[in-house]
Amino acid sequence: MASSSPSSMSPPMIPMELHSLNREKLFNSLRDHLTSCARPLQGFVLLQGGEEQTRHCTDHLELFRQESYFAYLFGVEEPGFYGSIDIASGKSMLFIPRLPADYAVWMGKIQPPSHFQEKYKVTQVLYTDEIKDVLLDQYHATGAPLLFLLHGLNTDSNKYSKPAEFQGIEKFQTDLNTLHPILTECRVIKSNLELALIQYANDISSEAHVEVMRKTKVGMKEYQLESMFLHHTYMYGGCRHCSYTCICATGDNSAVLHYGHAAAPNDKTLQEGDMSLLDMGAEYHFYGSDITCSFPVNGRFTRDQSLLYTAVLDAHDAVISDMRPGVS
Amino acid sequence: MASSSPSSMSPPMIPMELHSLNREKLFNSLRDHLTSCARPLQGFVLLQGGEEQTRHCTDHLELFRQESYFAYLFGVEEPGFYGSIDIASGKSMLFIPRLPADYAVWMGKIQPPSHFQEKYKVTQVLYTDEIKDVLLDQYHATGAPLLFLLHGLNTDSNKYSKPAEFQGIEKFQTDLNTLHPILTECRVIKSNLELALIQYANDISSEAHVEVMRKTKVGMKEYQLESMFLHHTYMYGGCRHCSYTCICATGDNSAVLHYGHAAAPNDKTLQEGDMSLLDMGAEYHFYGSDITCSFPVNGRFTRDQSLLYTAVLDAHDAVISDMRPGVS
Repeated sequence: MASSSPSSMSPPMIPMELHSLNREKLFNSLRDHLTSCARPLQGFVLLQGGEEQTRHCTDHLELFRQESYFAYLFGVEEPGFYGSIDIASGKSMLFIPRLPADYAVWMGKIQPPSHFQEKYKVTQVLYTDEIKDVLLDQYHATGAPLLFLLHGLNTDSNKYSKPAEFQGIEKFQTDLNTLHPILTECRVIKSNLELALIQYANDISSEAHVEVMRKTKVGMKEYQLESMFLHHTYMYGGCRHCSYTCICATGDNSAVLHYGHAAAPNDKTLQEGDMSLLDMGAEYHFYGSDITCSFPVNGRFTRDQSLLYTAVLDAHDAVISDMRPGVS
Repeated sequence: MASSSPSSMSPPMIPMELHSLNREKLFNSLRDHLTSCARPLQGFVLLQGGEEQTRHCTDHLELFRQESYFAYLFGVEEPGFYGSIDIASGKSMLFIPRLPADYAVWMGKIQPPSHFQEKYKVTQVLYTDEIKDVLLDQYHATGAPLLFLLHGLNTDSNKYSKPAEFQGIEKFQTDLNTLHPILTECRVIKSNLELALIQYANDISSEAHVEVMRKTKVGMKEYQLESMFLHHTYMYGGCRHCSYTCICATGDNSAVLHYGHAAAPNDKTLQEGDMSLLDMGAEYHFYGSDITCSFPVNGRFTRDQSLLYTAVLDAHDAVISDMRPGVS
């Protein structure tokens, strides 16, 4: 099956309805919760998006990737935004940074709020220096408006998410407990639009794994397998980010779960007789894949490698069939 | 000139003498300075290396890249180190983190201090929890030992470098003013070993630019040019990092100096008649390149493009010949 391109795929359109649906899901869950506690259906969800970081004290900007809760609700690629949802009306707002004139020289055209309203399909777009006035103005109940801020433990990292901060926040009441568990739960069950992006990230990553397998040769460095994967998923799949640093382990390194980081940087030379264990997954518009693939680097299983590989496959199939009791 | 590999290069060995020479240069400059101020030749230079970062509150680890002052003096790839130089003797020490047992399961073999002593060619390697005791013990003058810490303004970013912090620092005197200007000055004039790495980063990046130029076609996305560059420099050059995010500007985007970041992510489609401006440079063992290359994306200059391109080249040649008055 010869083909002129090494890929049969191309990056799909990103439907911004995906994020409207995510917001609607949160809106409904949060209102259900407040109703069940006999609390008023008033106030605003307010999230602060991620900010651009430099490398230590230098002016080297790290390539920005949005904070994931913010990405879930708003799909915003740019740094320095805030986003809110009005609990009373469902109205969604983005607040964009007011950029200095010389941004246009260095970073690109300064887009007006209407550009981002069109791009991200929110009800309204304003500037971050207007958050206080706009939210106070749009609050139609008595007393200081309540802000539902994101604060909670990530149990993988043991770190806490950072609640939004802005000038004038002292004019508001804040609730740090309600939002995090509800929003986290919303993210657990994926919509069909989300599933389609996850499927795409998996498809392009699978294709890249096959491409890497095809080109792997004894004598290569492990990082060359990483480079081939990254190139395939970016060049043909439009995936600029990965879900995690590529783990390209061969030989003994395959026993190290998160091999591949700076202190173990995929730098072994592939040897005759090595098995590889490649754990690599691309990300497309914030939705990721996570695929591990194991094969002999010279293309031929030894008898022992084949026995073990088959035993693991059999065990895996047994687990899967246990998980699906209805499938014979 | 057909070739089976698209590259004529392979990653050179990294000479750790490069960093011993950098330390020696700092040692001599600092002693000269102290002598000229009639200050005692006692105390320690102490730097804290960079630490691994996660993406926001998640357990997604960003690929670590060492802080540049620390890299200059010690060449260390791993996060969480400290390094010191004894002003009295020139003795160099690295302090490594004492890793928990389960590091071996997740991240890789826990190497003993002797491994890093061999790898980085320093006088001695100890653990970070021993900094206070070791430095107090190795100080042979009276009073609290003086630590020269790195504190100073980066005039590109307007940010300050972070002076080392550790448990027990209150047992020491600290000097925040002396080290930064002297170390910064040391880094300005490069040694031959440094020049060789910079030359290599430039050679592999130049080759990658040529490869990208060869493969660029109307209808591609700008980010595909980025992907080809990244792949060439990593696959064939062993360069895991770039000096900066690739700027792959075509058409009007070429007027934006730092195009290519998350808010302007190299996502235009190349059009018939576009000029490209590709500003991309790989980094090899902390030494970087910075190369810009401009060409018509369809491979043929229009008359206007050619006139302008030639005018810029002529202006550039005039500047270069002014800078080298001895060259006829």
